[in-house]
Amino acid sequence: MMPCARAAAAGARLIYENCAATLRRMLISRSFKHCKACGGAVQYVVPPDDNRERATCTVCHAIHYENPNNVVGTVPVWGDQVLLCRRNIEPRFGKWTLPAGFMELGESTAQGAARETDEEAGARFEMQGLFTVLSVVRVGQVHLYFRARLLDTEFAPGPETIEAKLFTEDEIPWDELAFRTVRVTLEHFFADRKRGQFEVHCADIG
Amino acid sequence: MMPCARAAAAGARLIYENCAATLRRMLISRSFKHCKACGGAVQYVVPPDDNRERATCTVCHAIHYENPNNVVGTVPVWGDQVLLCRRNIEPRFGKWTLPAGFMELGESTAQGAARETDEEAGARFEMQGLFTVLSVVRVGQVHLYFRARLLDTEFAPGPETIEAKLFTEDEIPWDELAFRTVRVTLEHFFADRKRGQFEVHCADIG
Repeated sequence: MMPCARAAAAGARLIYENCAATLRRMLISRSFKHCKACGGAVQYVVPPDDNRERATCTVCHAIHYENPNNVVGTVPVWGDQVLLCRRNIEPRFGKWTLPAGFMELGESTAQGAARETDEEAGARFEMQGLFTVLSVVRVGQVHLYFRARLLDTEFAPGPETIEAKLFTEDEIPWDELAFRTVRVTLEHFFADRKRGQFEVHCADIG
Repeated sequence: MMPCARAAAAGARLIYENCAATLRRMLISRSFKHCKACGGAVQYVVPPDDNRERATCTVCHAIHYENPNNVVGTVPVWGDQVLLCRRNIEPRFGKWTLPAGFMELGESTAQGAARETDEEAGARFEMQGLFTVLSVVRVGQVHLYFRARLLDTEFAPGPETIEAKLFTEDEIPWDELAFRTVRVTLEHFFADRKRGQFEVHCADIG
């Protein structure tokens, strides 16, 4: 390409990327039609001293912020096996996942990860270190996984799980995993285990 | 204490702690009076297949979830100095903080931390690794700090900052820091620097 054509292409690409980012932000936010304080209609406007459009009540002028959510879970380990749960709920009904779910108010990231492991797998385990912190920008989420050491192989899956089962690396149903963050976390887990050292992996996905 | 008195005290303590946890959860949630979809009145009830009270619309039956928010920021480093910003906004007006703020939709944790560093300090820097992940349960927040290498010492603080200034460890205004997560992050930073190795620190605060 000629330099000017290259510059034009780069410019077009930048415009495209900015538009895509704005569109993404709009798709995952803008959930407010009414004020959660007074029920009045809201408009999306940029408040004074801000630089983004926020849901602002046309009646009581309350401003409502929309921010990313955390999903917290574990990599439960028994010897050379990892515990996966087959989802009994949408999305990804029937697919395999690490035990995880939305972090709740009143708990820490580790407490939430432990709660989800208990609820989804009914496993007995000891929490270990933070392992992955994966931003899923497209859906406005951050997924945080901790390693956990299983204390036995008795599981009592909750209503969100069809079955809970141990897998060696060779047995992992890679094409039947529910979420990309589960795949990335498992890939890091087996790679780190081969190296004999676990690190915290922080990355952006999508 | 006699064994039974000790057991009674332990029981009372458990009840107190459970009450305190429930109260904390109620104080930081329950922000919905009206449905954000239709404006109807909401009630806090436990939905089917759930185990917590959620804001549920009495008219359109939409369920609204309330979850923790992420605060993202950096430890900007220049030689043996760290950059702090003096807050020009409430809460903690006039106190010193690391550049940080609420993570927004459409960005990753690292992108949010970089944006806040740009907005609050107007610094030029290179992002480095994730450093602390601190759950502040009491206020329903997770604070994530990344290390960052400053590229020069020219700062252009934004409207939320009175001044941006470099501090050696001895100069840090420990009694004038805005937030406990800033103190904990700085303590880990100087300790890790002495050891010559930076790790990711994940902990619960309050």
